[in-house]
Amino acid sequence: MRITKSEAAEILLAMDNILILAHENPDGDAVGSTCALCKGLRSIGKNAAVSLEKFSKNDEKLAEGLIATADFNYDHIIAVDTADNRIMGVGETSLNKNCEVELCIDHHISNIFYAKNTCLDEKAAAAGEVVYDILKEMNIEITKDIAECIYVAVATDTGCFRYSNTTAKTFRTAADMADLGADVAAINKIQFETKSKEYAAIEKMAISSMQLHFDGKCAILAITNEMYVESNVSDSETQPLASLPRQIEGVYAGITVKEKKKGMCRISVRTNAPVNASKIASYLGGGGHSMAAGCSFEGSVEDAVKTVLAYTEKELKESGLI
Amino acid sequence: MRITKSEAAEILLAMDNILILAHENPDGDAVGSTCALCKGLRSIGKNAAVSLEKFSKNDEKLAEGLIATADFNYDHIIAVDTADNRIMGVGETSLNKNCEVELCIDHHISNIFYAKNTCLDEKAAAAGEVVYDILKEMNIEITKDIAECIYVAVATDTGCFRYSNTTAKTFRTAADMADLGADVAAINKIQFETKSKEYAAIEKMAISSMQLHFDGKCAILAITNEMYVESNVSDSETQPLASLPRQIEGVYAGITVKEKKKGMCRISVRTNAPVNASKIASYLGGGGHSMAAGCSFEGSVEDAVKTVLAYTEKELKESGLI
Repeated sequence: MRITKSEAAEILLAMDNILILAHENPDGDAVGSTCALCKGLRSIGKNAAVSLEKFSKNDEKLAEGLIATADFNYDHIIAVDTADNRIMGVGETSLNKNCEVELCIDHHISNIFYAKNTCLDEKAAAAGEVVYDILKEMNIEITKDIAECIYVAVATDTGCFRYSNTTAKTFRTAADMADLGADVAAINKIQFETKSKEYAAIEKMAISSMQLHFDGKCAILAITNEMYVESNVSDSETQPLASLPRQIEGVYAGITVKEKKKGMCRISVRTNAPVNASKIASYLGGGGHSMAAGCSFEGSVEDAVKTVLAYTEKELKESGLI
Repeated sequence: MRITKSEAAEILLAMDNILILAHENPDGDAVGSTCALCKGLRSIGKNAAVSLEKFSKNDEKLAEGLIATADFNYDHIIAVDTADNRIMGVGETSLNKNCEVELCIDHHISNIFYAKNTCLDEKAAAAGEVVYDILKEMNIEITKDIAECIYVAVATDTGCFRYSNTTAKTFRTAADMADLGADVAAINKIQFETKSKEYAAIEKMAISSMQLHFDGKCAILAITNEMYVESNVSDSETQPLASLPRQIEGVYAGITVKEKKKGMCRISVRTNAPVNASKIASYLGGGGHSMAAGCSFEGSVEDAVKTVLAYTEKELKESGLI
């Protein structure tokens, strides 16, 4: 059932012994929004804990003392920022992805309503915005600690207020968090101004390998398995690389080919209108959105590059750009 | 004389035939705040125009139709975002830097009070924030056009809300501008998600040249005159390069050496506490702040690198880091 924020607040107020989950590979929004909720619930005397899969060390401070221990007894399961239970992260618990979720708090328009109750605000830039609204409905005092969780959620899911999901409400939420004591400068430095040595190493190799094609309308990055090995970077850390090729002026199709395992590549396609990323990816059995899509490719990096360039050329031609 | 925002509003309401200036090499805040003010003044029937030095093409749309023609007759000069008249930009006018400025609207704590009246809000992240407050005092309706100028001013001067000058008020100003119709997504894409081909080319060369020293506590970028020539980038465009070395985890001193002319280098020093950037720069006759400083160096890039590394080593040792 789809419920309002005030109904979600009522349900939460009536619960105790609460386990809070989020999606696999939890990002800043997943960690920030679950931790904000957990801290809020604890502040009014509830027994609550979060269970998350491995997340970035940038977010470790937020989750300090909140992770469910093996003997944590819960009566209710809540999922935050998780549109589909097939991507549910259950952490160290013995739960499986199909566990019964009593309340889902989310902002993804793609939510499949797997939970008993779903509080979905698809206009929110981050699940953290929705959690903030619900905590207010519960009359929970937003401490500095909670404010920092919500700020991380909102700032990371908008790429520090750069992405098109950023709204006036997002900025007001950030303003509230700053007023409530969130150390915005310190958080921004950690989240947006610091690269790990491993990431910096692979970024250097990736940028050196970047090539322009079709009169500069396509830029392509190829990351070989050797580069992964040499830089010692984890795959999850390499996500920001996909946004680099499209940033170059005049580029309509920015392609990133990553050879995760020898002979197995992942292709990311980022485009500017009128070029359709999803069309390029679909030629290779993938899909996504009009400006961001992806697919897998069995074969070498060289073959992946050659193949995706051919389909990109086709799409650039059909778009009348070359 | 230092005056309040409401006094500045009164002064502006009493004026007509107004020329608005900003500092040399005008950035997004200089262009955005002068243009917002000009549009606001015109909206209540005043004769006003701006005169600016060459600025980024990213900001061209903001200034459309506002630039003073050669025959523009003015009775009053206003300077925005300009702390010191020695850096005044007079554009195509026949004025000199010592022209009599009736009103200065600024946010730099270093303002030297050269103008007859100075409205200074040193807590504001951008001059655009101060202009916004003054326009409100004047009861001027903030149109979408004005809102976009103010948004550009605020967003660019905070590195899209990343820098430590970002406050709750900055976020609220951005929220107001989004509500007033500013196309935040489109502006962010132009300002923060697009690199010129020339910048992308020199960034690639610069990142390839980046080296770590002193157990990874110092990162250094060297940009030779040949790289400038090969990439065809303008010097003003290369400013963001200086922030790259310090972004690497574990780096306390991030150094950028740029050989602007053969045999003449500019060194930028960015540090994290406890390393003092200004101390390193001062050994070479430069100066600045504790975390951002700079100096000139007569000699080759190789000599500049060798020399600044020696002083960086000294400062890292004195800070107990190596």
